[in-house]
Amino acid sequence: MKEEVAVIGVGQTAFTRNCGVSIRELCFEAYREAVEGLDLSPKDIDALIIASAPEYDKQRTPAALISEYLGLTPSPAFYVESVCSAGTTGVRVAYSMIKAGVHDIIVMIGFQKMSELSSRDAAEVMGRGDDTMFSSPFGTTMPAGHALYAQAYLHKYGATEEQLAKVRVKNSHYGALNPKANYKKVLSLEEIMNSDVICSPLKKFDCCANADGASCVILASAAKAKKYTSKPVWVLGVGAATAELNWSVRGSNTSFLATREAAKTAYEMAGLGPEDINVAEVHDCFTISEILAYEDLGFAKPGEGPKLVEDKATYHDGKIPVNVDGGLLSKGHPIGATGGSQVRTIVKQLRGEAGETQVAGAKVGLAQNVGGVGTYPNVIIFGR
Amino acid sequence: MKEEVAVIGVGQTAFTRNCGVSIRELCFEAYREAVEGLDLSPKDIDALIIASAPEYDKQRTPAALISEYLGLTPSPAFYVESVCSAGTTGVRVAYSMIKAGVHDIIVMIGFQKMSELSSRDAAEVMGRGDDTMFSSPFGTTMPAGHALYAQAYLHKYGATEEQLAKVRVKNSHYGALNPKANYKKVLSLEEIMNSDVICSPLKKFDCCANADGASCVILASAAKAKKYTSKPVWVLGVGAATAELNWSVRGSNTSFLATREAAKTAYEMAGLGPEDINVAEVHDCFTISEILAYEDLGFAKPGEGPKLVEDKATYHDGKIPVNVDGGLLSKGHPIGATGGSQVRTIVKQLRGEAGETQVAGAKVGLAQNVGGVGTYPNVIIFGR
Repeated sequence: MKEEVAVIGVGQTAFTRNCGVSIRELCFEAYREAVEGLDLSPKDIDALIIASAPEYDKQRTPAALISEYLGLTPSPAFYVESVCSAGTTGVRVAYSMIKAGVHDIIVMIGFQKMSELSSRDAAEVMGRGDDTMFSSPFGTTMPAGHALYAQAYLHKYGATEEQLAKVRVKNSHYGALNPKANYKKVLSLEEIMNSDVICSPLKKFDCCANADGASCVILASAAKAKKYTSKPVWVLGVGAATAELNWSVRGSNTSFLATREAAKTAYEMAGLGPEDINVAEVHDCFTISEILAYEDLGFAKPGEGPKLVEDKATYHDGKIPVNVDGGLLSKGHPIGATGGSQVRTIVKQLRGEAGETQVAGAKVGLAQNVGGVGTYPNVIIFGR
Repeated sequence: MKEEVAVIGVGQTAFTRNCGVSIRELCFEAYREAVEGLDLSPKDIDALIIASAPEYDKQRTPAALISEYLGLTPSPAFYVESVCSAGTTGVRVAYSMIKAGVHDIIVMIGFQKMSELSSRDAAEVMGRGDDTMFSSPFGTTMPAGHALYAQAYLHKYGATEEQLAKVRVKNSHYGALNPKANYKKVLSLEEIMNSDVICSPLKKFDCCANADGASCVILASAAKAKKYTSKPVWVLGVGAATAELNWSVRGSNTSFLATREAAKTAYEMAGLGPEDINVAEVHDCFTISEILAYEDLGFAKPGEGPKLVEDKATYHDGKIPVNVDGGLLSKGHPIGATGGSQVRTIVKQLRGEAGETQVAGAKVGLAQNVGGVGTYPNVIIFGR
C-alpha cells in the first residue's frame, strides 16, 4: 500500500432543493462532519481549496469568505473548477501539494447552491460551459449532449432504453437508503420508462437534477494522517484528462475517451487494474453516463455495460458495486459538491462504515467524476 | 540554487482595451510567445492550468476550450482562481504538481477579457468579490477598500498624497518603455495630483485600469528544464496566505498582514531575505498598494515606504527596483493575466533580456500578486 497522502476526514450536507442557508453555512456543515472526532484545530490546517462552478449564486471568489467563516485564515485559500468534476480536481490538487511537501493538511470543500436560479436560468448557465461562440447558442445543453451519446450507443450496440433505465432502478434503490440523498423514492422500470422525454432517448428519470449541497475531504501527509486517525484511506492513484470541448471532433461517440486516458493514468500510478476495484463511484449525471463509465473504466467490454447492471453485478453484493449511495441520479448533483460526495462514499466503504450498503471486505475503491459532456474526467483510486 | 522546478518559457499579449479577438485567440498569442524557440511540441505538455476570474465574459469553464485550441488535449486542463492573483495561484499549483512528480511540464495561462462589460458592470462584478451578504451591497468596491487603507496610512504616518503619486510617476516612466503596456504616457506629479478624485485620497492616476490580455508561464521539472532551455529560471520560494474578507476584523489597516505571511513562507523556503532581492514586481493596483508592498515584503520599515520611491531606490538603477515594467498602473490590469505578466518580467530580468530597464546583474527576483483588497497574496521568488 502506497502510504504518501491519505484522506483523514469526509463530510457532506444533505443534498436538497432550496437549502435555505448561506453558502458559508452550507460549507460549514460539510466541514463539521469531516472534522468530527479528528481533534484537529484550525491552526493545524495548512490550506483550503474551494471547488465550485461560478454564476449559480451571486458570490464571486468564495474561498476567502469560507476561510474566514471556518477560522482558517491566514492559511492560503483558493478556488478550482472543472465544472462538475471540480471536487475531484480539488482533491487532485490537494494530493499534489501535500506530496510536494508544500502543505501537510489541506481541507477541500466543494459546494453549489443552485436553487437561487430558476431551472431555466441554471440550464442557461450550464450551457455556457460549452463553446459560447460556436456551440451553446445552438442548444448544446447537458441533456442534449448526453442524449447524442446515448443515441449513438443504442444504435451501435443494439442496446435498449430499458437497459438504460435499469441503471436508475438500481440507483433509486440505493438512494432510498441514503439519508443525505434528495430523491429517496424507489422507482420501478415502468415509472422510469413512462417519465417525460427530456431529450430522446433520455427521459426525466434518466437525468440527475440540480441541488444545493456541500462536501468536504480532508487530506494529509502520511505522518500527519497517522497522528490524527487510526483509519487513514490512502490515495493510490490519480488520473485526469481533457476532451475536446467540441464533441464533433472527438474520436468516439460511444465512449468518453478522456475517461479512458484518466483511468489509465490512475491505474498505472496505483499499480492496479479494473479487476482490483472493490467498489466504485461513477459520474451518472445521466443513465447513459454510468453505462459508458463501466466500459471506459474497464469494468465491462465495449457494448457490454448494460449487461453489468442487468445481471446486478453493480449492486452492493455484486462483482463490481457501483454508485451504491444512489449516485448523482438519486442524491442530486450540486455541481461542485459531487466529487467530494463520491470520495466520502468510497472512504466510508473502505472504513467499513457504509451500513446496509457496505461492500463486504472492500479494500480498494475508485471515484470517477466528470465535468461537462465527458470533457473533464478525474479518476482517483483509494485503498486502506 | 535549488534546482527543482523552473520556468522555461514566458509570454504575454499586449494589454489593451477592446482587444477584438476571442479568448482562445488571446490565450494563443500569449502561449505563442512562451513557446517560441523552445522546440516543445504539444505532446510534451502534461497539463494546462487556466487562471482567470469568472463573469467578465460569457464563456464558462474555458480550460477545455483553450486546451482544444492549443492542441493540448487529452492532457488534463483545469481552472484556478483567487481573483487578481489567479495567475500566481496557477504558478503555485503548477510548481506543486511538478515537484510532486504528478506532471513534468505544465503550461499556465492567465487571461481576462474585460471589455465585454461596461466599466460600471465590471465594477459591479468585481464588487461581488466582497461578501455579497454583508459588504458589497454597501459599496465596498476595490477603489473604496484601498482608499480606506490609504486614508489610515496617511493619517498614521503623516505621509502625503504627493508621495503616493510618486509611485505613479515612476511606473508611468517605465510604462512608456514597455511595448506591451496599455498606458504609455509619462505622467507628471502635477497631472496625477490634478486628476479626478475616484475615492479620496485616490485619484484617477492612483488607480490601475481594466484591460484585456493574456499571459503564459511554462514550468518544468529540473530534468525537462535542462533539456528544453539553457536559461532555466528556478522557483526558489513560494508563499501564499489569505486575509479575512471582512476588512474590519483584520489586525491592521496600514499593512496587508497576509502579504507578510506569504512573504515569510516564500523567504523561508528560498533561504533568502528581502535584502537578497535584486528586482521585484508588486501588485500596484493602486499607488497605496505599492507602498504597502514595500513594507510588507520587508524592503522598507513600516511608515518608510514612501521614502523608497522618493529616493528613487525602486527605479531600475536603485537599491531595490520595483515594477520597472510599468506595473499594473501602466500596463493595465486584466485580472487573470496580471500574475503571469509579473512572472514574465522577472524571468526576462533574470535572463538579462530586459533591454533598457535591465537591472544590472539581477540574480534573484520576486513577484507579489494580490487578489482582492489584500485578501489573496502570493509571493514567489525566482533565481538563476
